[in-house]
Amino acid sequence: MSTPAVDLLSDTLTRPTEGMRAAMASAVVGDDVFGEDPTVRELEQRVAGLLGHEDGLFTPTGSMANQLGIRLHVKPGEELVADSLAHVLRAEMGAAAVLSGISSRSWVGPHGLLDAAQPLALMIPDGGAYQVNTRLVVVENTHNFGGGTVQPLEQIEALRSGTRERGVALHLDGARLWNAHVATGVALETYGRLFDTVSVCLSKGLGAPVGSVLVGSAEQMAEARIWRKRFGGGMRQVGILAAAGLWALDHHVERLADDHARARRFAEAAAEAAPGSIDPTRVETNIVILDVSVAGWTSADFVAAAAERGVRLYAVSGTAVRLVWHLDVDDAGTDLAVTELVPLLAKGPQ
Amino acid sequence: MSTPAVDLLSDTLTRPTEGMRAAMASAVVGDDVFGEDPTVRELEQRVAGLLGHEDGLFTPTGSMANQLGIRLHVKPGEELVADSLAHVLRAEMGAAAVLSGISSRSWVGPHGLLDAAQPLALMIPDGGAYQVNTRLVVVENTHNFGGGTVQPLEQIEALRSGTRERGVALHLDGARLWNAHVATGVALETYGRLFDTVSVCLSKGLGAPVGSVLVGSAEQMAEARIWRKRFGGGMRQVGILAAAGLWALDHHVERLADDHARARRFAEAAAEAAPGSIDPTRVETNIVILDVSVAGWTSADFVAAAAERGVRLYAVSGTAVRLVWHLDVDDAGTDLAVTELVPLLAKGPQ
Amino acid sequence: MSTPAVDLLSDTLTRPTEGMRAAMASAVVGDDVFGEDPTVRELEQRVAGLLGHEDGLFTPTGSMANQLGIRLHVKPGEELVADSLAHVLRAEMGAAAVLSGISSRSWVGPHGLLDAAQPLALMIPDGGAYQVNTRLVVVENTHNFGGGTVQPLEQIEALRSGTRERGVALHLDGARLWNAHVATGVALETYGRLFDTVSVCLSKGLGAPVGSVLVGSAEQMAEARIWRKRFGGGMRQVGILAAAGLWALDHHVERLADDHARARRFAEAAAEAAPGSIDPTRVETNIVILDVSVAGWTSADFVAAAAERGVRLYAVSGTAVRLVWHLDVDDAGTDLAVTELVPLLAKGPQ
Amino acid sequence: MSTPAVDLLSDTLTRPTEGMRAAMASAVVGDDVFGEDPTVRELEQRVAGLLGHEDGLFTPTGSMANQLGIRLHVKPGEELVADSLAHVLRAEMGAAAVLSGISSRSWVGPHGLLDAAQPLALMIPDGGAYQVNTRLVVVENTHNFGGGTVQPLEQIEALRSGTRERGVALHLDGARLWNAHVATGVALETYGRLFDTVSVCLSKGLGAPVGSVLVGSAEQMAEARIWRKRFGGGMRQVGILAAAGLWALDHHVERLADDHARARRFAEAAAEAAPGSIDPTRVETNIVILDVSVAGWTSADFVAAAAERGVRLYAVSGTAVRLVWHLDVDDAGTDLAVTELVPLLAKGPQ
Repeated sequence: MSTPAVDLLSDTLTRPTEGMRAAMASAVVGDDVFGEDPTVRELEQRVAGLLGHEDGLFTPTGSMANQLGIRLHVKPGEELVADSLAHVLRAEMGAAAVLSGISSRSWVGPHGLLDAAQPLALMIPDGGAYQVNTRLVVVENTHNFGGGTVQPLEQIEALRSGTRERGVALHLDGARLWNAHVATGVALETYGRLFDTVSVCLSKGLGAPVGSVLVGSAEQMAEARIWRKRFGGGMRQVGILAAAGLWALDHHVERLADDHARARRFAEAAAEAAPGSIDPTRVETNIVILDVSVAGWTSADFVAAAAERGVRLYAVSGTAVRLVWHLDVDDAGTDLAVTELVPLLAKGPQ
Repeated sequence: MSTPAVDLLSDTLTRPTEGMRAAMASAVVGDDVFGEDPTVRELEQRVAGLLGHEDGLFTPTGSMANQLGIRLHVKPGEELVADSLAHVLRAEMGAAAVLSGISSRSWVGPHGLLDAAQPLALMIPDGGAYQVNTRLVVVENTHNFGGGTVQPLEQIEALRSGTRERGVALHLDGARLWNAHVATGVALETYGRLFDTVSVCLSKGLGAPVGSVLVGSAEQMAEARIWRKRFGGGMRQVGILAAAGLWALDHHVERLADDHARARRFAEAAAEAAPGSIDPTRVETNIVILDVSVAGWTSADFVAAAAERGVRLYAVSGTAVRLVWHLDVDDAGTDLAVTELVPLLAKGPQ
Repeated sequence: MSTPAVDLLSDTLTRPTEGMRAAMASAVVGDDVFGEDPTVRELEQRVAGLLGHEDGLFTPTGSMANQLGIRLHVKPGEELVADSLAHVLRAEMGAAAVLSGISSRSWVGPHGLLDAAQPLALMIPDGGAYQVNTRLVVVENTHNFGGGTVQPLEQIEALRSGTRERGVALHLDGARLWNAHVATGVALETYGRLFDTVSVCLSKGLGAPVGSVLVGSAEQMAEARIWRKRFGGGMRQVGILAAAGLWALDHHVERLADDHARARRFAEAAAEAAPGSIDPTRVETNIVILDVSVAGWTSADFVAAAAERGVRLYAVSGTAVRLVWHLDVDDAGTDLAVTELVPLLAKGPQ
Repeated sequence: MSTPAVDLLSDTLTRPTEGMRAAMASAVVGDDVFGEDPTVRELEQRVAGLLGHEDGLFTPTGSMANQLGIRLHVKPGEELVADSLAHVLRAEMGAAAVLSGISSRSWVGPHGLLDAAQPLALMIPDGGAYQVNTRLVVVENTHNFGGGTVQPLEQIEALRSGTRERGVALHLDGARLWNAHVATGVALETYGRLFDTVSVCLSKGLGAPVGSVLVGSAEQMAEARIWRKRFGGGMRQVGILAAAGLWALDHHVERLADDHARARRFAEAAAEAAPGSIDPTRVETNIVILDVSVAGWTSADFVAAAAERGVRLYAVSGTAVRLVWHLDVDDAGTDLAVTELVPLLAKGPQ
């Protein structure tokens, strides 16, 4: 397919802006394997501060940030639990098992929405010497495959309370925590302090080209640094990328509200034209998951038809497609998506 | 604690009978690492035949038999799904992740009872290059932590049909398949042919001291044999143990009906005295899981009180205890369990 | 091939004697997963005592005993060093890497003979956060692929001193330590106390059908017990096998001297008839590695020709064959081996 | 320590030049996880072409490039062999074992210099079902810990011939292959075609901030791409970094000759003043490993004394230090190193 007019495939697609490119070009750098890149250290400490943690560690991907965090809490042969559509279980290619020998079980929840009672019932931290011991619960906020779902603060608090009581750690996959923060007004630090470790991504909504940050205690970050090298993530003058992250923190957080408004606008139009395809009140952030089967579409056919009209989407299942708003989609792009896709959805395949 | 008068801790406790000991003492043996132990080969082929498969492989434990079977179907970084209380996820110490790099997700079902719709909805065999691909569903029959639950044949058939259609393999953890066979009258081969690989245990209900058998195709068994050595399970003149297994197949299968009747008798007495503690119609085989909280007991206190009365039990959660009938518990032992435990349960802690 | 008249393939071939079978048949047993098998405990403690260690753990194979011992000392991503023909590197199917994520390097030594300077030069225990840290040296005594080589006590002592100084652990693969003890008169305890952990095998020279024992501290054995279950080695009424081990300790240790004498006798005959094929002074225990190329043989052809004459051997390389004496080869069998093989070797292939 | 006047710690320290920064700032980028970053594709194909291979894959580090290459050739439980100071065994934190379950053995060679007879004697590709099978030999050219050693082309050819004959793969850790090429005039393609896969690094001698490239067949790169994601190396708009690599290929290859000349100049001065500290004829590229013990220094003391004089070095052992020339060290810096360090070395600690 040729370049789409509007690309809603993922918020990982964003290209660096001019200002961000200039920030990268002038970054002061050093060898980060030896801890000597000042721009990386600035970013790590700034993100740690925002999330109420002691220290941070830059990683090439969100997957590596999550996997390093997970490893800090769970030894080989022990267990984590997460929801069945969690990124750490679905989209990180089985890394927890392959790289760290960690077993996993899952609960099934609608739209990835956290109900603390589910992990609390599932976890078994006292399995002793004959059963697997649960050491970690992972929460994803916002929830990607659930449709950009914001996790209710009170459910996180209930989970924190229940896990602390039984000695189970809590890791936040906060790849899109920025979106939850902007959607709810809850401070990043409020979220951050409820978890033992948090990963956040700079290359999704924030628009940096590459990079994530893991935060936790200084001791944890020192251990994670060794494992980062073992995983092949110990990069050199990576302040080039960290500079983009710092720029993004200064310029691209608050603007996420625009993405949210545009996603909601699309969802409302779709819901009106094709009732049952989406509940627009659930579109709290930048992701829309549309059930295209209500009008007789398969997701594959709908994706193809949208592509012909210049809009790129992602099929998340046989009957649902995902649309993601981001830095490179403006009001005009949203208008085009509405104009081209909503009638297409409503009338069904011919 | 001193030796209990009645030991209901597990059916793994059974000691070899005199006949079985004599069979072991006279077994013809060879070096099984080189495939030269005739008694082992006889057992492997007999079990394979019973289950409708081409060949078998003797293993020191049921865990190793399951883990070898699992590895045949799932590569590092790929995924299996099983119910959240499955032995392969709970009681094998995270081996699939540690030994084979296999990721896992689970569904939550009451009493471990299979509802084919759950694994069929959970599995994702077409994750492509960006998501984890489900390669295997594991079914446990009967289901240990679920309470000796027999899996409905039609649910297994529905699962077989749905997994075959989408190219997903099916492994049966049949540690207690003998009990399902005796309880339902369904032929072992009928069960066996519905799965790509099956493990069965000789040292639980069947009463052999040590050993399990994995069955599948000859090619699969050849591969499993190499991994058995890698896992440290390549034993030498192990026909000594295989002879016990052959004896058990000849003498200890049909008698499982007695265990089932005794377990049911206990369950009925408990249900009458302490309503809500157990639904006796669910006691189809040799395991009783009793909710002792209905009369105010914690499981730990009930286990201790039972021990004082000469009966050993296992606490499976904070509120439930497990009783398992087996070769070394007769009618008199069952009478004693009823007499000592039922009133204790009913009146609650003092 | 039909049953050989003399089977020198391996000392793993030995079949249990009548006395050993009787001991197994009358063994008092329990569920060893719960630590309740008295015969297993007796064996574990007896072996620990013989080797000067606090406690022991029974395992189904020597490979598992070694791999459990190794895991106690080395964490994933750390390193062990051993000689390039060590059983732990060559014959355990890469288990240290697969099961425990342990890296390895090796030194190359003639006949597997320990020269302490080699491991001491190779090990790097102070690699810090940027290099792999060596945590363990493994010594094999006697050395199997080296030809039953006895390790010099003073070299072991030098290695112990050098490793202790730098905080590196020492594990003894003592599968055939019994042979070293009998050949040299050095007490088992003298050897044992020089190592942090020791594995010994009951199913090689000692003639038990199955089983090995790992020894170390009580705390180490408790941890190894959990990993034994994870590896699939947690067997039930395994006192059946432990009883054979106890019998072997009572009856089959001192007689190893006969195996040694027979192996030496064969080696001397071979050296005389085919000079260069073997240095008989190096045949200190029960293994003879013969260079058959001195008379123009390939190992494969010589193995085949020997088989036709009723003697089974093992080709250890393209030019060398291995002959192993054991419980089931007596003076007559040795005579036959000499009579049939020595002229064959000397005259070369026709 | 304050910023050193001359930093000879490593050639990983180089900071991007102005021209390189401009190239990064103007790079055309896309989402490389979806294969849509044109600058990354350009770099991958250009490097593949230079090395005579079909396709390439960009990675965040040289370690990840090596580990992906290794994994293509060796399955869990199989084996690679390399020299005992190889980067893949010493400086990648045991990744082959942890991430891929790969066992390893090593030979010991002076200065890391390849003698093909050693790996050919060590490898065992025909271990069958009872022994570990060697699947890969890794060669490092130039050899880092050996002192920038250039591998003799005829030894590589002999190894290629011997491995091909026995079905063993060959991987080149070519992190500093650029240096070998410039030092010898042998074409990159001549080196490249002798190996099944090759990794090269852009962030060492070439001076790019981050990144390596693995090359091989298109099919291999497709598989490596999936594992790159699993290892946490699937980055997004990474054309920013690839642009630096392209710039480096255009501007920083031939200039490596200057680094080599400067290193040699220092080595000659050191050898004259402190005979035995270095054989300058072995300094063929940009690395000098100096034996400081000839004048009574420990490496730690010498590193500290050098630092006081404004020169940063690395202690590679208790008696040797490493000096590495690179893009950010010019003639004046070399003069300073000679002036400050050579007399210091010669006179020894006071």
